[in-house]
Amino acid sequence: MPVVDFRTSPGQYRHWQLAVDGDVATLTMDVAEHGGLVPGYELKLNSYDLGVDIELHDAVQRLRFEHPEVRAVVITSGKDKVFSAGANIRMLAASPHEWKVNFCKFTNETRGAIEDATSNSGQVYIAAVNGTASGGGYELALACDHIMLIDDRSSAVSLPELPLLAVLPGTGGLTRVTDKRHVRRDLADYFATRPEGITGAKAVAWRLVDEAVPRARWENSVSERVRDFASRSARPIEVQGIELTPLPKTRTGDQISYSSVTARLDHERGVAEITVDGPRDHAPADAAGLHDRGAAFWTLVMTRELDDLILDLRTNEPELGTWVLRTRGDAGTVLDYDNLLLRQRDDWLASEIVLYLKRTLKRLDVTSRSLIALIEPGSCFAGSLLELALAADRSYMLSGVFEDAGPEASPAEITAGALNLGPLPMGNGLTRLQTRFYGDEAGLTAVEKRAGEPLEAEDAEQLGLVTFAPDDIDWDEEVRIAVEERASFSPDALTGLEANYRFAGPETMETKIFGRLTAWQNWIFNRPNASGPDGALRRYGTGQRAVFDRKRV
Amino acid sequence: MPVVDFRTSPGQYRHWQLAVDGDVATLTMDVAEHGGLVPGYELKLNSYDLGVDIELHDAVQRLRFEHPEVRAVVITSGKDKVFSAGANIRMLAASPHEWKVNFCKFTNETRGAIEDATSNSGQVYIAAVNGTASGGGYELALACDHIMLIDDRSSAVSLPELPLLAVLPGTGGLTRVTDKRHVRRDLADYFATRPEGITGAKAVAWRLVDEAVPRARWENSVSERVRDFASRSARPIEVQGIELTPLPKTRTGDQISYSSVTARLDHERGVAEITVDGPRDHAPADAAGLHDRGAAFWTLVMTRELDDLILDLRTNEPELGTWVLRTRGDAGTVLDYDNLLLRQRDDWLASEIVLYLKRTLKRLDVTSRSLIALIEPGSCFAGSLLELALAADRSYMLSGVFEDAGPEASPAEITAGALNLGPLPMGNGLTRLQTRFYGDEAGLTAVEKRAGEPLEAEDAEQLGLVTFAPDDIDWDEEVRIAVEERASFSPDALTGLEANYRFAGPETMETKIFGRLTAWQNWIFNRPNASGPDGALRRYGTGQRAVFDRKRV
Repeated sequence: MPVVDFRTSPGQYRHWQLAVDGDVATLTMDVAEHGGLVPGYELKLNSYDLGVDIELHDAVQRLRFEHPEVRAVVITSGKDKVFSAGANIRMLAASPHEWKVNFCKFTNETRGAIEDATSNSGQVYIAAVNGTASGGGYELALACDHIMLIDDRSSAVSLPELPLLAVLPGTGGLTRVTDKRHVRRDLADYFATRPEGITGAKAVAWRLVDEAVPRARWENSVSERVRDFASRSARPIEVQGIELTPLPKTRTGDQISYSSVTARLDHERGVAEITVDGPRDHAPADAAGLHDRGAAFWTLVMTRELDDLILDLRTNEPELGTWVLRTRGDAGTVLDYDNLLLRQRDDWLASEIVLYLKRTLKRLDVTSRSLIALIEPGSCFAGSLLELALAADRSYMLSGVFEDAGPEASPAEITAGALNLGPLPMGNGLTRLQTRFYGDEAGLTAVEKRAGEPLEAEDAEQLGLVTFAPDDIDWDEEVRIAVEERASFSPDALTGLEANYRFAGPETMETKIFGRLTAWQNWIFNRPNASGPDGALRRYGTGQRAVFDRKRV
Repeated sequence: MPVVDFRTSPGQYRHWQLAVDGDVATLTMDVAEHGGLVPGYELKLNSYDLGVDIELHDAVQRLRFEHPEVRAVVITSGKDKVFSAGANIRMLAASPHEWKVNFCKFTNETRGAIEDATSNSGQVYIAAVNGTASGGGYELALACDHIMLIDDRSSAVSLPELPLLAVLPGTGGLTRVTDKRHVRRDLADYFATRPEGITGAKAVAWRLVDEAVPRARWENSVSERVRDFASRSARPIEVQGIELTPLPKTRTGDQISYSSVTARLDHERGVAEITVDGPRDHAPADAAGLHDRGAAFWTLVMTRELDDLILDLRTNEPELGTWVLRTRGDAGTVLDYDNLLLRQRDDWLASEIVLYLKRTLKRLDVTSRSLIALIEPGSCFAGSLLELALAADRSYMLSGVFEDAGPEASPAEITAGALNLGPLPMGNGLTRLQTRFYGDEAGLTAVEKRAGEPLEAEDAEQLGLVTFAPDDIDWDEEVRIAVEERASFSPDALTGLEANYRFAGPETMETKIFGRLTAWQNWIFNRPNASGPDGALRRYGTGQRAVFDRKRV
């Protein structure tokens, strides 16, 4: 597999057109058949691979920062009679297991980002399904707030994965059909067994789409509906976007560097050592200062870099199973940036930055890598950056200082700030602190009472904010063992363990999609009935029927 | 594999002793090393296989019906220094995938039944962990309401599955640790990587157990605690149990028959055709009549038989992938039985019967078989039996009559009754009707308004209570295609589809265990890192280290 780069911009798109007209944007999918990321398949009928979805991800992201004036986004197809055939089957059939799973995770995150824009930024997505939408094509529509289907006797919506490929819809389809659109479960069952899908009035009656519109009225109806949604959006008007300037990045075999984030790739130990730097300059005083800095504002810089790094490591470095997380800088300045964002929360840009940080931290939560935070002198695990330690599976905080390396240093401190107490919920709807202290109200209250106060290792351990607080004598050995031991365990069992432990308590549609549906899909992807030489995924399009082991598991 | 029989009784137990003393019962685990269900492994150190758990299941069940006077149940070990080593590893390593998964499902259900007895019947379970409890051994303790650990410097609790076997704890351990016992997630992470486990005071501090008691005070402390719990139980006193008489059953290669439940096994089509008969006699008038009938009371008879059939088919007939569900009898009489149970809900036996029916229907919900209900003339899908149709993935109801076979018959009817409106919740905490109409309050209200009214096919379809209502002309063809088509799909994909669709809406600890944790475990069980020839599960005990593919998925 090539090293995949997630950075792109509208000028480089091969598969999508982004057109902005006043407060309405149109995202037109028109996949280049020969534009696959990897050789070996053709992206016919608006089917997609990771490369297509990277552009969609970029467009959804830019709309929020560069086009805050947009209040409604239409997703439609540039092809005749086909909206999208979903994920490319030959690509899936030829991909190794970890590639398939990682691909589905990313596409799920982008669908989630579409819903997040609708719910939290008043950028309402409308699917104008102007042809057949199959599998992932229909799932893309499901991520939109409103689905219009052209009623021409041939255009249908369908989830043909089960009957044709012996897998599940991989982008949240099963969960959204029942939990978001409230399709009755027995109708949903029937629907998912019909490769030809459901058309027109029946699709509306079953709640699979919101309206079916005859071809003659199509253009007018779509415009009307879009105007409707745009006029009802709560988004502020007369705002000026900021440009998401190109992300500077250097990548070698053993290091990935950005301006505020660095990762050392240690292939021998199977570890990525990630360091996030705090701000180098003071926080601006007000919203005007924030807008002046734009894409150079530290929180946005750091979030963009961390987001790109997570995607890069996940896709390109599957054997780096442990990510060690460090921070470096001044905690007070980090909190200043946090507090500016919170004070200006009614400003669209401040709000978008916090929402983006929220999405990036959620990406970390669903990353199938062991996360170990190391809290050392000189670090700045405070507020927004404390979330990294709270997202980790374990944290080690040095008690005292390194007597040899820096006897004069101040001992490490951590500080809970306002950003830890609400604005950055996980997918389960709880903050990372609430999840950590799930069922332990007293523990949570004790931490909240100390918010704003720098805490040294003993206090942090006592309050349950860090896992262990070894001193200089034990530090090296304890940390080394933790990291080495992690590398000795089964990667699969670790993935399952972490996916369960990270989400204590309540579930949401989002955790159901990432935790439950994904696990079933992973299992099915791995079964010979789908992926074996005689499985349905491998035999699709060969004219040969799949051979199934009929035992029910 | 042998045909497994789930019927047993305390006189036949080889692995457990059940002793009842007043309002306290003691369940002592003392597994017979050479008493494995299948040859090829020894059940050392109170490790268990399906046969051991069948006895536990029977004991938990009998305590509720035969010993309603029991208010506290102690689970302890008859071995020296070991409580239980968990599921037998050689058994797991040698078992095919579907056997492992099915075994875990059953053990999970029995742990759930222990919690159900504690929560709903005031039979409080206490784990007296008088030696090391590893893996499934600790998970058994986790199902209890209170965990006492002997503090002797060697007895520990542990979840060693990940470091030793490269799999997850298979009986809800990861979910209960965080969601039930509120162990902090980073401590839970550390705990699950320590094969030697955690002992004494630290186990208490981390909430892994409720108390650690020195050996010298052990006996007294356990008695004291048990008296404590027994005295606080809300269970009525001075009650007289009923005997769960042996279940008559005949089993041939193509039929399983009980008194009220029959299954035709069609191996060629991969279908089990299950018929449940309604009551043959009138419902008794009052609680005294109910107690007189005891184990012969229709609802209890039907539930016991259905429960046994589900377990039998799941374990012994994995290739029968579709279960067709029919009923036969008088709907009015079914509702009379239901109504008696509801009128007498303060009677312990009436309450136990409804709770048992609830558990049995939940078993159906998590069964990895396609469920298709056929509603024909002469059927009695009303109240308790309507739940079978509501549990099904799809239902077909004949509109009108079979013109050739029974032109004089009355058309089929279904009736929603009081038992459909609350007392039989699914694992997600909602009734099957609420789950069916999740997000459609109007639809649910419309059905509730018609409760008690027999509905013919058109009305039932209109109200959304059945999936399809074909008439005589289309019936045979439509039903045949539905059943044949099901058999043509991938069994794995169907399992995943159904597991997702059956549980719309909220999640509970129970659905997390069955839906999310189980899916991850299934995936891991199926991965070469665990179950391949060089995987950890297969290499355990050989002295050879497992070889892992290090790619993270």
